Parts: sequence; C-alpha cells; structure tokens
Amino acid sequence: MKVRFEPFGVEVESQAGDRLLDLALEAGVHINASCGGEGVCGKCRINVEEGSVEGGLSEKISAEDAEAGVRLACQSTIIEDVTVRIPVQSGMDKVGLNALAAGSAQVAKLIGSEELKAEGRFDPSLSKLMVSAPPPSLEDNRNDVARLLSALKQAGENHFVFDFEAIRDLPSAWRDGEWNVTTTINRPVDPTKGRNHVIRVEPGDTTSKNLAVAIDLGTTTVWAQLLDLHTGEIVGTEGDFNGQISFGEDVISRIVYAAKPGGMEKLHKAAADSINKVLGQLSKRTGVDFSEVSLATLAGNTTMTQLFLGVEPKWLRLEPYVPSAAYYPPVKAADFGLDLPDHVSTLVFPSVASYVGGDVVAGVMGVGMHRSEALTLFIDMGTNGEVVVGNQDWMACAAASAGPAFEGGGIKFGMRAARGAIENFSVDPFTGEPALITVGHAKPRGICGSGLIAIVASLLMSGIIDERGRFNIDHPSDRLREGEDGPEYVLAWAKDTAIDRDLALTEPDVDNLMRAKAAMYAAYMTLLEGVGLTIHDLERVILAGGFGQSINLERAILIGLLPELPLDKYTFVGNGSLLGCRLVAMSNPLRAEVGGIVDQMTNFELSVAPGYMDNYTGSQFLPHTEAKTLFPETYRRLNEAKAALKEAAA
Amino acid sequence: MKVRFEPFGVEVESQAGDRLLDLALEAGVHINASCGGEGVCGKCRINVEEGSVEGGLSEKISAEDAEAGVRLACQSTIIEDVTVRIPVQSGMDKVGLNALAAGSAQVAKLIGSEELKAEGRFDPSLSKLMVSAPPPSLEDNRNDVARLLSALKQAGENHFVFDFEAIRDLPSAWRDGEWNVTTTINRPVDPTKGRNHVIRVEPGDTTSKNLAVAIDLGTTTVWAQLLDLHTGEIVGTEGDFNGQISFGEDVISRIVYAAKPGGMEKLHKAAADSINKVLGQLSKRTGVDFSEVSLATLAGNTTMTQLFLGVEPKWLRLEPYVPSAAYYPPVKAADFGLDLPDHVSTLVFPSVASYVGGDVVAGVMGVGMHRSEALTLFIDMGTNGEVVVGNQDWMACAAASAGPAFEGGGIKFGMRAARGAIENFSVDPFTGEPALITVGHAKPRGICGSGLIAIVASLLMSGIIDERGRFNIDHPSDRLREGEDGPEYVLAWAKDTAIDRDLALTEPDVDNLMRAKAAMYAAYMTLLEGVGLTIHDLERVILAGGFGQSINLERAILIGLLPELPLDKYTFVGNGSLLGCRLVAMSNPLRAEVGGIVDQMTNFELSVAPGYMDNYTGSQFLPHTEAKTLFPETYRRLNEAKAALKEAAA
Repeated sequence: MKVRFEPFGVEVESQAGDRLLDLALEAGVHINASCGGEGVCGKCRINVEEGSVEGGLSEKISAEDAEAGVRLACQSTIIEDVTVRIPVQSGMDKVGLNALAAGSAQVAKLIGSEELKAEGRFDPSLSKLMVSAPPPSLEDNRNDVARLLSALKQAGENHFVFDFEAIRDLPSAWRDGEWNVTTTINRPVDPTKGRNHVIRVEPGDTTSKNLAVAIDLGTTTVWAQLLDLHTGEIVGTEGDFNGQISFGEDVISRIVYAAKPGGMEKLHKAAADSINKVLGQLSKRTGVDFSEVSLATLAGNTTMTQLFLGVEPKWLRLEPYVPSAAYYPPVKAADFGLDLPDHVSTLVFPSVASYVGGDVVAGVMGVGMHRSEALTLFIDMGTNGEVVVGNQDWMACAAASAGPAFEGGGIKFGMRAARGAIENFSVDPFTGEPALITVGHAKPRGICGSGLIAIVASLLMSGIIDERGRFNIDHPSDRLREGEDGPEYVLAWAKDTAIDRDLALTEPDVDNLMRAKAAMYAAYMTLLEGVGLTIHDLERVILAGGFGQSINLERAILIGLLPELPLDKYTFVGNGSLLGCRLVAMSNPLRAEVGGIVDQMTNFELSVAPGYMDNYTGSQFLPHTEAKTLFPETYRRLNEAKAALKEAAA
Repeated sequence: MKVRFEPFGVEVESQAGDRLLDLALEAGVHINASCGGEGVCGKCRINVEEGSVEGGLSEKISAEDAEAGVRLACQSTIIEDVTVRIPVQSGMDKVGLNALAAGSAQVAKLIGSEELKAEGRFDPSLSKLMVSAPPPSLEDNRNDVARLLSALKQAGENHFVFDFEAIRDLPSAWRDGEWNVTTTINRPVDPTKGRNHVIRVEPGDTTSKNLAVAIDLGTTTVWAQLLDLHTGEIVGTEGDFNGQISFGEDVISRIVYAAKPGGMEKLHKAAADSINKVLGQLSKRTGVDFSEVSLATLAGNTTMTQLFLGVEPKWLRLEPYVPSAAYYPPVKAADFGLDLPDHVSTLVFPSVASYVGGDVVAGVMGVGMHRSEALTLFIDMGTNGEVVVGNQDWMACAAASAGPAFEGGGIKFGMRAARGAIENFSVDPFTGEPALITVGHAKPRGICGSGLIAIVASLLMSGIIDERGRFNIDHPSDRLREGEDGPEYVLAWAKDTAIDRDLALTEPDVDNLMRAKAAMYAAYMTLLEGVGLTIHDLERVILAGGFGQSINLERAILIGLLPELPLDKYTFVGNGSLLGCRLVAMSNPLRAEVGGIVDQMTNFELSVAPGYMDNYTGSQFLPHTEAKTLFPETYRRLNEAKAALKEAAA
C-alpha cells in the first residue's frame, strides 16, 4: 500500500498495520512527537486527505477535527492507500530536509536446507542409519560391536570407531530392538582422514529423529536454534539474556571478574545456565524432547568461548592480547554443564584473535564471504566492533574498540534498546521540535544506540550541531540550552518522560558517539590500506549482529559510521554467529571450510597498526574530515541542506 | 648348598634359610608331619649326620637326642651343606616312592626395559618433550597453542591434536614456565594413521617424570605396577583383594549380582575402590605422587572389564555368551572413578570372548606367543581355566569350566590359599601317615588348590586311591575310613588342626578335582584337534596366573591336569595380565600388536565343540584313560610304584 506525505510529496510503500509516525520518520518526513508514540502528547497531528487509516482518534482531537480527517500519526495504522498532510512550520515545506533518496539495504536470505540442497551442500556430519543383523548363536557369538560393524559394512559403511557410550548402550539396544539398531554416526571433517564415530545406538528405527542445536553465546544475549538434520528444517529459535551480565556488561569486566576467587566458575555457570534456559524454552516451544539431540554447535567471541570452556581469559585483555587457542577439539556438552545428553559433542567455532572470535568466523562463513569474489566489508557492531575485509582470496580482520556508546554506555541518558528507549528521531530544523519513537511506544526513558545515531544525524542535517559535533547554541529553540555538562539538546521535557526529568543529549554524548564511530571507520580504512586498497574499492558491506540489524543505514552513513556506498550494496545478515552455527550443523562440507577461513584471516592489532591513529583522528568528524572524497553524496546533501535552511530562513 | 636325604640318597640344591621339611617334600622325600609345620606335633624328627642346620630343637626332643643330632625338620633351616637321615617304616627306604626325576620348569624372565631396549622395542607411546618459545609481542601475538605447535615443529614433531585439558592448562603453563613448557604426548598406535595427542602441558622441564600404571583387575585380586617410562624401571608393585568378592566369589555370581537394583554401580565402585586402594599403597610405598602419572593400562577378564566400565554383563553368562565388544576406546581414568589425574587415559585390553578376556590377551602378548614359531599351550588356571593354543601363525582359545575346585570350591574342607591351608603334602604308602605343609606353617584349617593336587597325586602314587579316584578302603591306616560322604582320608586329626575336627579328603572331593582337571585337559585336546594337531605336537607350555605359579608340575602332570612334557618345556610367567599391561605401557610397537592378537585368536565354545565331551569323559581318570599314550612316563612310574609297593609288602 502507498502512503503519500504532503506537502513534501514523499511517497513510501507500506504494509497493512504499519504506523504512520514510524513510516514518516523512516521516510525522513518530520512530524513533531514528544511522547515516544504513546499517544499522550497529542503533537503528531496529521490530516488524512485521501483514503483512510485505522485508529488515530484521541481525546486530544475534537469531534470537529476528527470529522475533518485529523488523526494522531502515532496512533494511526495503515489499511489502504492513503495521502496525509503534515502541518509544518514556515519554510519546512520547502526544505523537506530529511527526505532521503530511495534505495535500501538487502536483508540476507535465511540460508536453510533448500539453498544448501540446491548447492549440493546439505550434508550434515551427523547422520543416522538403521541396520539389522541375525541374532547371535553358539556358532556365531561375535561380540555386539562386531555384529554391528558387519551390518554397517553390508550397508556400505566403513571405517568406524565407537564412542565408549555407544558400546555401553549397544547390548540392550540390539536386544530391545530385536536385532534392529539405529546408529548415530558423526563423520570427520575430512572423510579422507579420521574415521566415522558411532556416538549413539538406539533400539529399532529412529532415523527420522536427527536433531542438532546451534548456539550463539553472545556477551549480552544467548540464542539457540533447534535443527532437524533429517529434513533440514529449522524447528525453532529462542533467545534470552546472558546471565553473565550480572557480573559485568562487557567482556573486559567479565575477564576482570573471572580473576576473583570463584569468578571463573560463576561465569561459566552463568553462561551454561543461560544456554540451558534457552534450550528449555526451545524444547517447550517446539515440544521436542532434547534427549533426541545429538549435536551442538556453538559460537561466541573469544572471551565468551574461553569463559564457557573454563579457559583462563586473563591474557586476552593484557597486551599483547593472546588467546589460548584458535581451535578447540569437540567437547562433550554435558561435561560443560549443558542439559544435553551425554553423547552430544559440541563443535566450538575457532577464534582468530583475542577480539575476533568464533562469532565473527561463524558470520563470515555464514555469509559465504570466503567464497565470493566481491571485496566485502563485514561488520559486527557492538562494544567491540569486529571488522573483516576481504574476499575468497584473502581476509584481514580487526577489532575496533568502539566502546559502549552503541549500547548506550557513556551517554548521559544512554540505555539498552529496552522499553522506553528512543530508537528513532527527527527534528524540525526551524523550531527544533523533535519527533521521538521509543521501543514499545512508551514514554521516553533514555536513548539507545540506534536512537543516538538517528538523533545525531537529524541534528547534524538540521544544522543544530555542526561537523565537529558542537551545538549551535544560538538556535532559537528553547530545547537548546547550557546544561551541567555544557550545551545540550532537550529531547523530552520532564513531563513527557517516564523519568520525571528533562531527557537531553549533551555535547559529551556526541563526542562519545564520534569516538565510537571513528574507531569503526578507522578500522575499515586501516584494514583496506593494509592491503593497498581504499574504501572506494569496497563492493559490498555486510552488517551482522542485533545492533547491525537495527541501524538506519542513511543515518549511519550520514554521521560517518558506515562507508558511503549505494544502499543496495549493504546486506543485513542478522545473527551471523547463529547462522554459521546452523550451517556447520547442516553441512559437513561447510564445516570443513571453517579451518580455512581462520587460517586465511590476518588479524591487525589496530593499536599498533600503521596509519590507524591518523585514520581515527580524521574520522572524528561528522561524517569525516575528508567528507568531500570519502562521503561525496553526503557532503553534497549536507551543503544543500545548509543552503536550503539559509534560504528558508532569509 | 647341598642337602642330602638318606636313606633315599636324594640330593637337592638349596638356599640358606630354606626349611628342611619343605625341601624334602619338594624333592619327593616323605617325612611324617601332622601340624602343617608349626613345630607342635613333633613327628618330623630327622637326624643330622653331616654338617649342621639352624634351629630344629624343641621340647619334643630330649637333650640326649639333640646331642645325637635329632632335629624337627619343620623347624630346621639350611646354613651349609648337610646330610640328614629320615627314620622310615620298613620297606619305605627301598621304595622311595615319591622321589621324582630331576628337571624343573623355567620361570619366565621378568621382561623389563632392558629386554625391550635390546629388541629395540622400549618405545612408550607416552613421551615428554620440553620446548621453548619467544614470549609473545604485539607483532607476534599468535595464540598459545599456535606458539606451542611451532615450537614442536622446530623440534621435529608434527601432526598434533590437543586434548581440551592441555589447551585449558597451556596459558598458565607457558607463563609459569617463562615460555618453557613440557608437553606429554600420546602417540597413536599406528603412527601412519591418527595423530599425536598432546594430553598434558606443564611449566618448565618435567621430562624426567614420565610415569604410567599397569593394572591387573582380577576376579580375586587386583595388582598394580608403577612404571617409569623415562628410565623403563618398574618402580613398585602392589596387590590386594578385589572388594567385589563381598558380592560373589566368581564371575557368575557377580554377573547375577549386577542384575540387582544398584548392583552394577556397587560392583563398579568396589572395583574402582580396590584399584584406588592398591594405587594408594603403591604411592605410599614408592613415595611417588600419582598426580605425575599420565597413562594407565588395564586388563581383566571380560566380566571384570565390563563391570569396571559399567557395561551390562548379563549376556556374558547367557547362551550364546556374547560380550559387548572386543575393543574399547581409551577411556579417561577419572571418569571411571580412579584416583588418577584428569588427563590420564586408560588403555583397556580387548577381549576375545565372554570367557577369554583382556587378561588372557595381555598374557599371550606378554609371553610373545604371537611372535614364536613354537607350538605353545598357554594356560591361565582358575575358576575358568583359559586356554590358548597356537603360535605366530594362528591361535585358538577356549574357556574351560573347571569350576572352583582349584580355589577350594566344592571341596569339603576346601579354602583359598590363606593361612592354615594345606599347600603341600606327602604320604607314607605303608603307614598312610602324612606330611603336611600349610600356608604360614600354621595348624591346618583346610585344603587349597595346590594342596589338593599334591594330596591326590601322593595318594595316587601310594596306591591309597586308584586311577578312578576310588579310595583303597582296605589300606591298614586308620586314616582311611568311611565318613559321612563315603570313603575319606583323614589328613589331620582334630587335635592337630585349628578347626577342632578331623580334616579329611573325601571321595566327592576327588571327583570334583577330577572333573576340574578333566575340563582343562579336554580343552587342550579339543583345541589341538580342532586344528588337526595332538598333545604330542606341543613344544612348550606357559602357565600364567597366581595359581599357575604355585602348581607343582610333577604332581599336576601325575593327576593329568597338565600334559606330560619334559619339565623344561614349561614356563611359569606369573601374572601374565600385569606383564602385558606393563609391556603395552612401555612399548608402542607391542601395543600395536595387541589388535592382531585378538584378530588372530579363534574362540571355541567347548560346549558345542566337536569331540569335547569325549575328551572330557576320557580325561576323568588319573591321569587319563589313555595314559599309556598320553602320559607314557607317568604310566610307567605308576606301574613301577605299584610293583615296588607289592614287592615291599611281600
């Protein structure tokens, strides 16, 4: 359905049920809105001129106005093509400042068994095979394992070793199944080396039950996915917070905590408990008994991996930042406290460096970066923004110490993307009046990462802050004022908030964001320069991670967090770590490629990488000191906007 | 030193400290002795004619007699060459019935590292290697494992995988050792397949501490040996009872107990506790901290193996007698309750069949039967006599259900070889008066296996029982009488015993022994016939096991328990199971041969083997129904003895 915003003449595609206010902000159309979308401030009044919307009426709107088509944008949802008019200040209609060029990023397809099958790669290392044998007699009383081996040989399968537990369970499996037994076989990564492991035996035919779980152990959240390796189906996905948060928000504070007496054990247990909680939810939601699961794959950053495995993480944070290992052998899930059967091995994704871990390797593998000719920039953004540049021939990676700004850290009213966090924003350049959208459409409580980017981008485009991040304190709006920490912009007055005080963005907040985004951008540049390339050579950008998913690309480019590339060169991949875990469980050929990825990735320690500090300094500008060459389109638009504002004001 | 027994003119070699009574009986010279060697019955009076002995005086000997050289044989020990005269009954001096031909079995050399070194086979799979590396820097911050791998590569070692625990311990090992680390490396059986496992890392140089334990888990006893793999030295050996005895004397009763609720767990725990007790004794005795041990090897019969590993043993005792497996993968000692460090793998000897287990395989391997051209009969005698026949080209094996007679079971006054058990015996054919030697030289309490053989052999040679095992009730001695269970021979009168009642051997006892020895002999015959050979083709016999060690060969042949072969064709090997465990720990090439041995061994189920029942029936004679061909020398001696007795009596 089409929604047209007048007087700007901006038209966007929408889905039934979309909210008008959200659509307007996404389209770069400003509508004043103070309460985050809760419908209480009454400021987001619009006129429905053609077609109709659902809802949008309020006690703030008189019967007469309602009759004339007035609605609250934050309460109106789309049901058909509609044209709405926004009451604007003088000049605003001419400027239409925020209206952005069309074009948007791709969302990566959820790679499932269909794609793998099409590529001939749906081929899990874990398989089940049912075999039968004649019962033993005095003339043929070979042992139970020998009987199974000869039945497997008849079925064309060879080169087996038995896990102890399979031997232990075999006598009753043969007899309970009346000499029919299903073996669960784990093939080695390289079938020419190593042997097939029989990890489980069950009486009778259970070949249709072949399950695995993929686990993404993140610093903040834990995700698990139940996979049916028989059909290739994703049976379910669940996530929850990582209980380690109680011991510290980021990896550094966890490493510090691990050094305390009993710290390691507590952190390990918190991780295991969190995974178990998610597995429990997954089992409940899908109705699948997890005693049927036979494989787990797990990825996390290097710290999460070492803490889960109980490997001393201290050296990760001390120069020269040495991880214990790249590769870990498969470990028994039960040995590490997971509520999974004894026979379940966990394949742990290898790490490249202290701050480039298995989650990044999983993501890179998941998106197939190592099999593409295109020069790709892979970004997993968070406290540590992990960055990988390269293609099928080479890869360079680094961790950028972005700091916690994207997670609300170091920002006066910063918070996680929880209920009441401002996540989208727009500003009227003339009045300085804002439009806020909050998570859950609740009264604002603070600012989350995507909100911060939206706010700074909007204020920059409106000339309320300049390229150095300084506030234009001469602006007529009373929202601009001198606060405790210097100049600040009041996002919401106390009465409109859920915290009963003025919620503002300060100059130090802007500085923090600029440092964070500068760290990221400098990382891209440094990696590329390290191999003699530049930003201009990039052919595509892949954004992974939960935060990556919620970024508005235009705004992130506007402030210089992401490189200026046509938006269709961007791909959102979501949880790349979980994606990689799933693919490894579903495809032994892909699993075999993981080692090559790690070996291919050259890690740069940015703190000692030549040119990094220069790049960092140059990036501490909005969008960049070299905007003219690195961000030519942004540079042009910012100048256009300045000129338009000047003209309108005149 | 020489000891000459008159009037028989028998001369034997002896060591200082040997007891005269023991020497006489070993030489087949009869001296009356009722009290088992305690010195209280006063019957074993002898005259020292030349030289002197230590001790031998008693209140039973008058001062005058003492002056004349009279001593008690049971209290006299050898200090120099001596000639003693034994007071004999009329005729006895002419008959000298029991004096046996010279010749004795070999005792197998304790195979240690010297022999292995001489053969180029001292080459433990477990080795230690100390390597050093430069400390990491920002320019070279490879992970700890990568640093170790490159140091190992520089030392010429390749193809490694790391056990998880080694990775876990590596960060502190590198740093505590100031970038010197000792790796404990476990090589695969076949170095062309598989990879070297790094199972442990320690800071600094600990290469001189490379220890293993060999464990023999027997039904009755548990033995452990501490091995220094650096020097090849046997540091110590300890043994104790298997605590499973409380749940049943033999494997069958243990299997039955295992089926009770909690039975398996109790039996597993009893075995683990017993091993731990022995390991504790070994650690205490040798002063070695067992946290330094890095490898365990373990052998037991199939039931002991399955109970230790917690593998259902039920099917071992039910027709068609199917074990769970031949081969088990190496298992973590700590996972099975052993007080050994986490990194210790236990190599468990494979089994051939339900009643031919890892202990037999270890023994066969230990004596090198699979590398010898000589047609060898290997016997491990116990409740189940395990028998292996073959050479380097082939091997056939079987378990003979000898029953518990050799362990005192089914014998009226039967007992284990504990204090007070009659272990040696001789009889005066004319008077029927016995000479008893008991374990610990205590008053007699019962009869152990070796005593039973000695008694029956002596009574047979004296004509007191006949070839069918029937008592000659017409013998003038009052020790022959009709008892509760039919004819019996009183070994000791109540007053001379520790049990206050007449201690006798009954005809049913003799029947039981005959059945047991017939089962053994029929097994040898059946296995040989199975491959178209006969007893006459045998080139050597190897006796393994504690009971094997205590057998008097001449007497065992006399009753038909062992085949008639020159005694120098016999070898006592002692604890073959422990020997095999030691060799496997000390020699990877020998370890590699174990699989071949198992594959080479064809198991015969005697109960369905053609000819077995005929052989069994034929063997239920003393020594055999076909004595003339199978036991020609024994046959000749028995006939000579009969004639001599007849002549002397006349």
